[in-house]
Amino acid sequence: MRAYQLTAWQQPPELREVPVPEPGAGEVLVRIGGAGACHSDLHLMEWPEGVVPYEVPFTLGHENAGWVEAVGAGVRTVEPGQPVAVYGPWGCGNCKRCRLGMENYCEHAAEIGAAGGGLGRDGGMADYMLVPSERLLVPLEGLDPADAAPLGDAALTPYHAIKRSLHKLEPGTTAVVIGVGGLGHMAVQLLRELSPASIVAIDLDDAQLEHAREIGADHVVRSDGEAAEAVRGHTRGKGAALVVDNVGVDGTLALAAQVTRPLADISIVGIGGGALPVSFFGVPQEASVQTTYWGTVPELREVLALAAEGRIHVTSTRYALDDVAAVYHKLEQGEVRGRAVMVP
Amino acid sequence: MRAYQLTAWQQPPELREVPVPEPGAGEVLVRIGGAGACHSDLHLMEWPEGVVPYEVPFTLGHENAGWVEAVGAGVRTVEPGQPVAVYGPWGCGNCKRCRLGMENYCEHAAEIGAAGGGLGRDGGMADYMLVPSERLLVPLEGLDPADAAPLGDAALTPYHAIKRSLHKLEPGTTAVVIGVGGLGHMAVQLLRELSPASIVAIDLDDAQLEHAREIGADHVVRSDGEAAEAVRGHTRGKGAALVVDNVGVDGTLALAAQVTRPLADISIVGIGGGALPVSFFGVPQEASVQTTYWGTVPELREVLALAAEGRIHVTSTRYALDDVAAVYHKLEQGEVRGRAVMVP
Amino acid sequence: MRAYQLTAWQQPPELREVPVPEPGAGEVLVRIGGAGACHSDLHLMEWPEGVVPYEVPFTLGHENAGWVEAVGAGVRTVEPGQPVAVYGPWGCGNCKRCRLGMENYCEHAAEIGAAGGGLGRDGGMADYMLVPSERLLVPLEGLDPADAAPLGDAALTPYHAIKRSLHKLEPGTTAVVIGVGGLGHMAVQLLRELSPASIVAIDLDDAQLEHAREIGADHVVRSDGEAAEAVRGHTRGKGAALVVDNVGVDGTLALAAQVTRPLADISIVGIGGGALPVSFFGVPQEASVQTTYWGTVPELREVLALAAEGRIHVTSTRYALDDVAAVYHKLEQGEVRGRAVMVP
Amino acid sequence: MRAYQLTAWQQPPELREVPVPEPGAGEVLVRIGGAGACHSDLHLMEWPEGVVPYEVPFTLGHENAGWVEAVGAGVRTVEPGQPVAVYGPWGCGNCKRCRLGMENYCEHAAEIGAAGGGLGRDGGMADYMLVPSERLLVPLEGLDPADAAPLGDAALTPYHAIKRSLHKLEPGTTAVVIGVGGLGHMAVQLLRELSPASIVAIDLDDAQLEHAREIGADHVVRSDGEAAEAVRGHTRGKGAALVVDNVGVDGTLALAAQVTRPLADISIVGIGGGALPVSFFGVPQEASVQTTYWGTVPELREVLALAAEGRIHVTSTRYALDDVAAVYHKLEQGEVRGRAVMVP
Repeated sequence: MRAYQLTAWQQPPELREVPVPEPGAGEVLVRIGGAGACHSDLHLMEWPEGVVPYEVPFTLGHENAGWVEAVGAGVRTVEPGQPVAVYGPWGCGNCKRCRLGMENYCEHAAEIGAAGGGLGRDGGMADYMLVPSERLLVPLEGLDPADAAPLGDAALTPYHAIKRSLHKLEPGTTAVVIGVGGLGHMAVQLLRELSPASIVAIDLDDAQLEHAREIGADHVVRSDGEAAEAVRGHTRGKGAALVVDNVGVDGTLALAAQVTRPLADISIVGIGGGALPVSFFGVPQEASVQTTYWGTVPELREVLALAAEGRIHVTSTRYALDDVAAVYHKLEQGEVRGRAVMVP
Repeated sequence: MRAYQLTAWQQPPELREVPVPEPGAGEVLVRIGGAGACHSDLHLMEWPEGVVPYEVPFTLGHENAGWVEAVGAGVRTVEPGQPVAVYGPWGCGNCKRCRLGMENYCEHAAEIGAAGGGLGRDGGMADYMLVPSERLLVPLEGLDPADAAPLGDAALTPYHAIKRSLHKLEPGTTAVVIGVGGLGHMAVQLLRELSPASIVAIDLDDAQLEHAREIGADHVVRSDGEAAEAVRGHTRGKGAALVVDNVGVDGTLALAAQVTRPLADISIVGIGGGALPVSFFGVPQEASVQTTYWGTVPELREVLALAAEGRIHVTSTRYALDDVAAVYHKLEQGEVRGRAVMVP
Repeated sequence: MRAYQLTAWQQPPELREVPVPEPGAGEVLVRIGGAGACHSDLHLMEWPEGVVPYEVPFTLGHENAGWVEAVGAGVRTVEPGQPVAVYGPWGCGNCKRCRLGMENYCEHAAEIGAAGGGLGRDGGMADYMLVPSERLLVPLEGLDPADAAPLGDAALTPYHAIKRSLHKLEPGTTAVVIGVGGLGHMAVQLLRELSPASIVAIDLDDAQLEHAREIGADHVVRSDGEAAEAVRGHTRGKGAALVVDNVGVDGTLALAAQVTRPLADISIVGIGGGALPVSFFGVPQEASVQTTYWGTVPELREVLALAAEGRIHVTSTRYALDDVAAVYHKLEQGEVRGRAVMVP
Repeated sequence: MRAYQLTAWQQPPELREVPVPEPGAGEVLVRIGGAGACHSDLHLMEWPEGVVPYEVPFTLGHENAGWVEAVGAGVRTVEPGQPVAVYGPWGCGNCKRCRLGMENYCEHAAEIGAAGGGLGRDGGMADYMLVPSERLLVPLEGLDPADAAPLGDAALTPYHAIKRSLHKLEPGTTAVVIGVGGLGHMAVQLLRELSPASIVAIDLDDAQLEHAREIGADHVVRSDGEAAEAVRGHTRGKGAALVVDNVGVDGTLALAAQVTRPLADISIVGIGGGALPVSFFGVPQEASVQTTYWGTVPELREVLALAAEGRIHVTSTRYALDDVAAVYHKLEQGEVRGRAVMVP
């Protein structure tokens, strides 16, 4: 089969011919129906050895869905032909957090040394993908795998960040989304479906802001020197109850602190490398600041349920496996609209 | 001024001329802009002495809004002319629950002997109403008092019942509303705005079901022998995560138990006099059954915010204070659509 | 190996010689270090065919701990020699609730037709026990398997019932434990360790009440006609915030309703066959009534942590596998103090 | 009466003779039974004009308890002679947060321009104190006012910080208290009473560490270069689930980040002027960092209930009003053990 692999650090990945893996005990072979191309893959291609504890070669692609092709001994809850999404972060499966479905925060993550398929282990930019356990598969609820694939990160990550703050999004409050790209355009839709909060979307790009308005933002604000004042105006001076920062550079985080109210949440989703200093003087009282990383298995089920009911929708373009190098190039150039999804 | 008062038990109320009250220290006089006529007022008119611990005479009307007319000494947070809603259940104001804004569950309710204005103390079916404290007033946020008045019970009561269960209404779940009258038609809208759950509305009346569908019910079910099976079908066999029973007779409660899933909430809002026996055999495992009574002050703010943003809307008809007896008669005959609101 | 099996309904179980099972893919063979004898086993022995959807023969014993003896292909997180507790309720392992560690409420429980080892599948009253997956094993944290075994039900079940209500057990509140037997004596200790609530223990037996006082009950009340008044006195007239009823007959449930306050929890843990009718008139306002069934995998970890730190302790007596029939007879006669634990 | 007043910025306060205030409508005059001397008063004495938006003169003392001496018109829930604690932060009383009892986070705090009695308005270092509303008084539940007074800040502040994190303090977790002074020695006791977490106390002073161990710390750690490693060792390498930092300088906050686990809470209580930069690289994943400020009215009730039941206890020394200047001097010199409480 074909697989688009990172074979050496700081070298372009290659589309290679590799054997179709055979599922051992407990494992499941998935025929890929869709694999999302994520910006973080571009980072992987550029980083020198040692930034992440992965060993090359491995196949890229961490947003995957498809059909069960074959199951290893002992697999009981999925069967060949069944359409499934592949949950992205692979933990040990049996620590307390993994048993709560929070494999994104596996207590043994450091020892495991790989974050999941496409992130240190073979991912979905291929014809087939081997998944280590049925526990990492979630039924598609009628969704097309090519539509479902990007939900596994682009929707799951903001879903997790938003769900943890829903109790703060009471009627009359405001939620702010900074950065309306892949994750951000899902954040806007998720807030619209899950909460009665007013939604303010912030971006540098007018086209993205227009898009945000179409999919549910109540107000859009251009990210410039007047942004903080504009956002506070949309909250009638009270400040926002939640900021989801999909960019995560110093500037957006400082903006987040300026536009929030006491007791709010500021959740850093974007790995832009910035930091927000928390103190009695820089952030409103008892406003909580935290990073969030991906989401949980039960949350992936919830995201798929929202999509299956037509409540949320990823804007995406499909392309063939043979075009994968070209598509990553377009992604780097900012020429991909929404999510690019590889369909073998 | 005119006041529609219950002057003796089991006697028709009378529209009487009474003095305009003067606010003492801490009190606020409100000029009525709207007062909702509630079915429970009909019960009050019919009950013999002793069913409720109220003393006659008192003015009816417990869903009230208007403008501050005058304030007593020591009042600091409202001023004459300001439009306000009057929070309905009046507690002691200073026990732990009252200090959490939960005057509906005041720890000294039994000693107080009156539930609030229109319920043992003078209510809003009058030109003016005396409110014992500014803490029972909530700003209208731009709403017309005649639109806001019925929100104080018809929306606040189901809002409280729904808000406490929102964490169970994850994507892919179902919420059931039994009885789509005054409270029920608000429950459907509140679920639509606050949660991603699918909404099933149940009623005996096809016109009400049609109404429910227009305002957001995903499925409607006629309340007959096949209702349980129909509801379970709409949940794909899983059972509902929440049932709000606005009727509360034995039959609707038994239906609620049949259509819920383990870990669900069954909340009895309607004072129909029924009971639901909870045991290992009659109700799904760890499904919680409880009555709920009215809502809290902060919740009233949230309900008003939803209405002010146009997210919920009470269907109502306005009438004059001189017509109040006739309107209660129509209410008793079932000839009032939505809420009848008295506007002096 | 020896195994104490139910071989036919309504016949005495037999200690039989059976082959040691071999773990298939994903399975784990556990050498038993302790197996608790539970009253519910007595029910199993007496029920006619069809009361529960189990097929005979199967080995009794659903409170188990020991050491991993052998692992099947694909098992990764446990290894031979490791001491483990066996989580009791066995779900499908991959539905949403199972992925949250709530196999006690598996969505496919009805299809599976057995509740777990000792409940339709071979349990721990034997030299060895086959566990279908490593996900059902929890590390012992230094506890002796014979001490840990009874925690799997006698402590886990009240732990689950109490943990869900901890947010209601604020300082100044009261928690009531009805029935101070196997589960009840753990409930008292758990409340003492987990909450600042005052603890009232109720029982028919003075020796049990004395025991309750020794292990942390602030007040003890004999279950008679004055019990309700006595309990309310201990709450200074306010009523309890939580009642855990380990008996669950009509009388104890009626008592629970009498001694609770508005917004309390009444949790039915004991399968005594009783029912509590919930209505506006029989139960305080917004007091929630529910059954609870066993606990979750993460909760079992928490229970073991409490025991490993010496915070809770099961009173138990050990006996040999050859004496198992005699011990169940003593259990039936009420002659077992605390938990009887079989140690092969 | 005598009152110890700040009469000019950066000048020593003076014990002055002033008229006994008369309670106007809604107000309550309290005869002081105890007033705690807090380190933050020392800051007040030293700051130049403009650091805080208060107007001089005002009487110091923001931890107060005593007896109701007289009530103004319209006061209904307290009566002369009744022992009460005075809640410290005085909000508008009628915004949403105030109506939830959270006057510490009043939405109109900026407009009010004073934080409460002793903080811009006349406090309790006097014979009498005027409280603007009965809603700021809480019954003492049998406590001596001199014992209750310091609970209003020294216990209430850490109580608020701990209560919000209790759901994270499951069995097997660790909570860390940095700084075992006035607030810290209450934090240790509160954790001991409210949670099953292991408690690690950190301080520079060996005597304070010894004190911490006596009142419930499971482990104590000297705050030096090896502190982080020592704390992680006490958590078996997992990291703490909560850090309450009562110091709040850069160094203690950096230590907090080093010893926490993913999903933990780091709560900054001490106003030491430090900051903790939150990013994907400096703080564990989804660990929440926030300041907390004082506590709520219902929380003050809970703190008093804990003390009235003897579960927590402030170490304190009593002194006379005439000695107040001398006592603040000793406080500045670090010669006060626990809390110094003025008793007129």
